[in-house]
Amino acid sequence: MATRNANAAWTGTLKEGKGTMKFGTYEGAYTWSSRFEDGQGTNPEELLGAAHAGCFSMALSSGLGKNGFTPKQIQTQAQVTLEVIDGKSRITKIHLITEAVVPEISDENFRRSRRQQRKAVPSP
Amino acid sequence: MATRNANAAWTGTLKEGKGTMKFGTYEGAYTWSSRFEDGQGTNPEELLGAAHAGCFSMALSSGLGKNGFTPKQIQTQAQVTLEVIDGKSRITKIHLITEAVVPEISDENFRRSRRQQRKAVPSP
Repeated sequence: MATRNANAAWTGTLKEGKGTMKFGTYEGAYTWSSRFEDGQGTNPEELLGAAHAGCFSMALSSGLGKNGFTPKQIQTQAQVTLEVIDGKSRITKIHLITEAVVPEISDENFRRSRRQQRKAVPSP
Repeated sequence: MATRNANAAWTGTLKEGKGTMKFGTYEGAYTWSSRFEDGQGTNPEELLGAAHAGCFSMALSSGLGKNGFTPKQIQTQAQVTLEVIDGKSRITKIHLITEAVVPEISDENFRRSRRQQRKAVPSP
């Protein structure tokens, strides 16, 4: 189907070094501090969160469409938690919070649409 | 440790609708066509690829540091493959290609550094 490309570079040590992540026209700097502390810059976790939220919002539109509904708006926030477990950093949770405006849908139809798509990326 | 936030919005149907993914100061538009065809815009897969490449480049710096080496440059390209399997879109492969410039390192020490970090995100 499609192969998508992205890049990242890193220079120097883990704690004093710095990197950039790139895709499309985006280029974002990241460091130890922007990933594990409160330093300026981006980090892989927020890119992953945006990707997850983006996939979910699109997939929910697909599920709604299969049940005959068209969303006016779907908003998804991803909260990605990074924790130290046994001395290693792990993503332990990605919490998605979605709010949707879907004209004339019932609770039951909304839940069915969500269930049908939550394990799948949108299908062609 | 840290919780990172990102957002995505979608309006309209799967094939005629459109969305945006956001993190930090980045905001990127995506559509059915930019995800599954060659349309203009971004897609969750390239964000995921950038995150994966970013994590790997940083983790390799960590592994090199544990063995006493400081990388001058680590470049990683991620190739994310999206395929239709049994009518569903799936990410079937993420291929990482890394080139590194590490002064005075042997092949053996480079391989050891890579092995030590390839399953872990960088540890504090």
